[in-house]
Amino acid sequence: MPYRHALPAYLAKRYHGWKATTYAENKSWYKRLAEDGQHPRAMVISCCDSRVHVTSIFGADQGEFFIHRNVANLVPPYNPDGEYHGTSAAVEYAVNTLKVSHLIVLGHSNCGGVAGCYHMCAGNAPELEDKSSFVGRWMDILRPGYDRLPNGTDADRLTALEKESVLVSLENLMTFPFVKAAVESENLSLHGLWNDIGEGTLEAYTDDAGYQAV
Amino acid sequence: MPYRHALPAYLAKRYHGWKATTYAENKSWYKRLAEDGQHPRAMVISCCDSRVHVTSIFGADQGEFFIHRNVANLVPPYNPDGEYHGTSAAVEYAVNTLKVSHLIVLGHSNCGGVAGCYHMCAGNAPELEDKSSFVGRWMDILRPGYDRLPNGTDADRLTALEKESVLVSLENLMTFPFVKAAVESENLSLHGLWNDIGEGTLEAYTDDAGYQAV
Amino acid sequence: MPYRHALPAYLAKRYHGWKATTYAENKSWYKRLAEDGQHPRAMVISCCDSRVHVTSIFGADQGEFFIHRNVANLVPPYNPDGEYHGTSAAVEYAVNTLKVSHLIVLGHSNCGGVAGCYHMCAGNAPELEDKSSFVGRWMDILRPGYDRLPNGTDADRLTALEKESVLVSLENLMTFPFVKAAVESENLSLHGLWNDIGEGTLEAYTDDAGYQAV
Amino acid sequence: MPYRHALPAYLAKRYHGWKATTYAENKSWYKRLAEDGQHPRAMVISCCDSRVHVTSIFGADQGEFFIHRNVANLVPPYNPDGEYHGTSAAVEYAVNTLKVSHLIVLGHSNCGGVAGCYHMCAGNAPELEDKSSFVGRWMDILRPGYDRLPNGTDADRLTALEKESVLVSLENLMTFPFVKAAVESENLSLHGLWNDIGEGTLEAYTDDAGYQAV
Repeated sequence: MPYRHALPAYLAKRYHGWKATTYAENKSWYKRLAEDGQHPRAMVISCCDSRVHVTSIFGADQGEFFIHRNVANLVPPYNPDGEYHGTSAAVEYAVNTLKVSHLIVLGHSNCGGVAGCYHMCAGNAPELEDKSSFVGRWMDILRPGYDRLPNGTDADRLTALEKESVLVSLENLMTFPFVKAAVESENLSLHGLWNDIGEGTLEAYTDDAGYQAV
Repeated sequence: MPYRHALPAYLAKRYHGWKATTYAENKSWYKRLAEDGQHPRAMVISCCDSRVHVTSIFGADQGEFFIHRNVANLVPPYNPDGEYHGTSAAVEYAVNTLKVSHLIVLGHSNCGGVAGCYHMCAGNAPELEDKSSFVGRWMDILRPGYDRLPNGTDADRLTALEKESVLVSLENLMTFPFVKAAVESENLSLHGLWNDIGEGTLEAYTDDAGYQAV
Repeated sequence: MPYRHALPAYLAKRYHGWKATTYAENKSWYKRLAEDGQHPRAMVISCCDSRVHVTSIFGADQGEFFIHRNVANLVPPYNPDGEYHGTSAAVEYAVNTLKVSHLIVLGHSNCGGVAGCYHMCAGNAPELEDKSSFVGRWMDILRPGYDRLPNGTDADRLTALEKESVLVSLENLMTFPFVKAAVESENLSLHGLWNDIGEGTLEAYTDDAGYQAV
Repeated sequence: MPYRHALPAYLAKRYHGWKATTYAENKSWYKRLAEDGQHPRAMVISCCDSRVHVTSIFGADQGEFFIHRNVANLVPPYNPDGEYHGTSAAVEYAVNTLKVSHLIVLGHSNCGGVAGCYHMCAGNAPELEDKSSFVGRWMDILRPGYDRLPNGTDADRLTALEKESVLVSLENLMTFPFVKAAVESENLSLHGLWNDIGEGTLEAYTDDAGYQAV
């Protein structure tokens, strides 16, 4: 059965519009990016969520950010077991090959993946506990964050768990020897952010002050 | 040692600019996206490469595309072994929870990950063969694509391998039972694209005609 | 309080893309349409629903269809009482000034306005009965269609009411003296259609055969 | 006398072409739109004029815009008198039920309805003054716009009146309590546009700067 289909026409039209405007205006830069390769200053790890556009928030253009996006912006702990580790491969490429200066983990409000984890850890989502649930197993990475949630309303704890998803990822990043070495030699700095989609606010976490509005 | 640092000022400045302009102009939409949740029409799997901006190419705004980005836009074969599978989790969430109608794999020219795979398979990158190389192990997914490359110059074969990265991913997607079922029930269609970064061209693969310019 | 805002940037970008491609390719036609005025062959009355695109379904380009869209594609009965009648004004302009040859009423499946009417007539939507409900009062036009629905399941009756919305509109059109005269002199023909959004099917109503697939 | 006729063959042919191509390519999306309902981001109020295609100008596909089209893109003042008000019903449905984030009024050059209003107000179209003229009575909505036209040539004043048709509609929209409330709570933003059909240009009105090219 054929399963590889033509691009929907509305996207083809929009592409042609982009080609005739944005591309035409930036052709020399795109050609140079192709010939000289990319030299991004930062890697960003954000969620796949369609409402999160890190390039928009930071006015970033082609060439600025090396971006990995997965469910709930998670980084698993270092585990060089010879299996496929897409997130770890992206981090390795950014730090060791591209030598980015900043590694930013960007969490966000209203995260469906984090909500799934919350319900799973609370015992209310047995389907996510199944071995065959890729989302459930992926969200296992966030269990240590759930375990240290403060008491409070479900809404408050959900937001807290979204913020924990950033902190757990940053902690796990430090278990990668090459990340830790780059941080200690001051060739790399780590940053944790949380974005409220509806309010448009952005908070950054520092060791000194915790989460504070940017 | 403190390792979580404040956002670099140049990014904080740009964020404040975005908040005062783009966010202010679209506040009603962002609030609704937060309250009603996302209803993206398509999932896009693209590379982390800083030169690839699928939202730009397709004039897409917040809410349109659920986007997973990893090194070389790869999807591993279905393997529900209970381990962490970030790409599989993203696909599962998009197809089963969000019920996207289109799943688009977007490859691109000048891909560093694909080039690494090419050199590794040709025996010229022993460091990538190491068990502890996350990039090497991740690029193992593309080995079946290397094995069917036509003869030709290195440049031609590299481009062919970039295009194979899209086809291997589409093939692997069809090994996921829920993807196959959604495709067969016509609730999901798959699309493969390859973008030349310098030239700004876009090619789409169909079962009938192979790669053709959009 | 200022309430008139700039166009969201994503629409401005798409507009510039259209200007550089579709407009540029059709400039001579658009200039002529501006200078010579429009000479559409048909008027179409369809629903405001975002899923109904009559120009797409019929491959129509600029200049072909004079299109009025309102909730549930309704035409009220002739009532020249000196008040505002937007639908009647559109019909009058199309028939008397533009002298269109065809007047097509296009209904569709999954119509929210028709569903509201159905629940209101069944006594299950008191809020729509309120004098101040514009949707409720507008849907009063369809009450004669509800009264002649056959027995059946709610789903069947809902679809039947969607098809009645087309027939009621055609009946009301014939109460306009200038429409009746144009029909009788064979300068105008009326057509009723119903489109199933999910299935993509189209049915046309004729006096001889009722609704039949096109 | 039978008055409901089969679809003209040229349209039936084009429909079958659409079914075999555009529908086939987007079947999964259309099925989902039917099952999950519409979630349009914006309502657009434009003219019935056959030369105005808002979906084309903005590269919009099925599901994006809830579109009301009437003669001269007019919105009457709020008047909940229990009569039929098609435009008010469409606005009510978009704002209260669909909760669109943007409400865009799109005017255009060479508008026949606006020209009729201009001649009527200048005393040169007595037939439009007649109580039974639906177009004349509908264009009464625009009289406040005529009264504030600057001096100038007829051509300039006609264009100015086209732009006033947008502003009068926006002013009238603000007389609807539910529109005003949504604007004030920042759940809705209003936008006014004017399109030159021959030149392909687009102007947007803001409180700060008046009409400016997009």
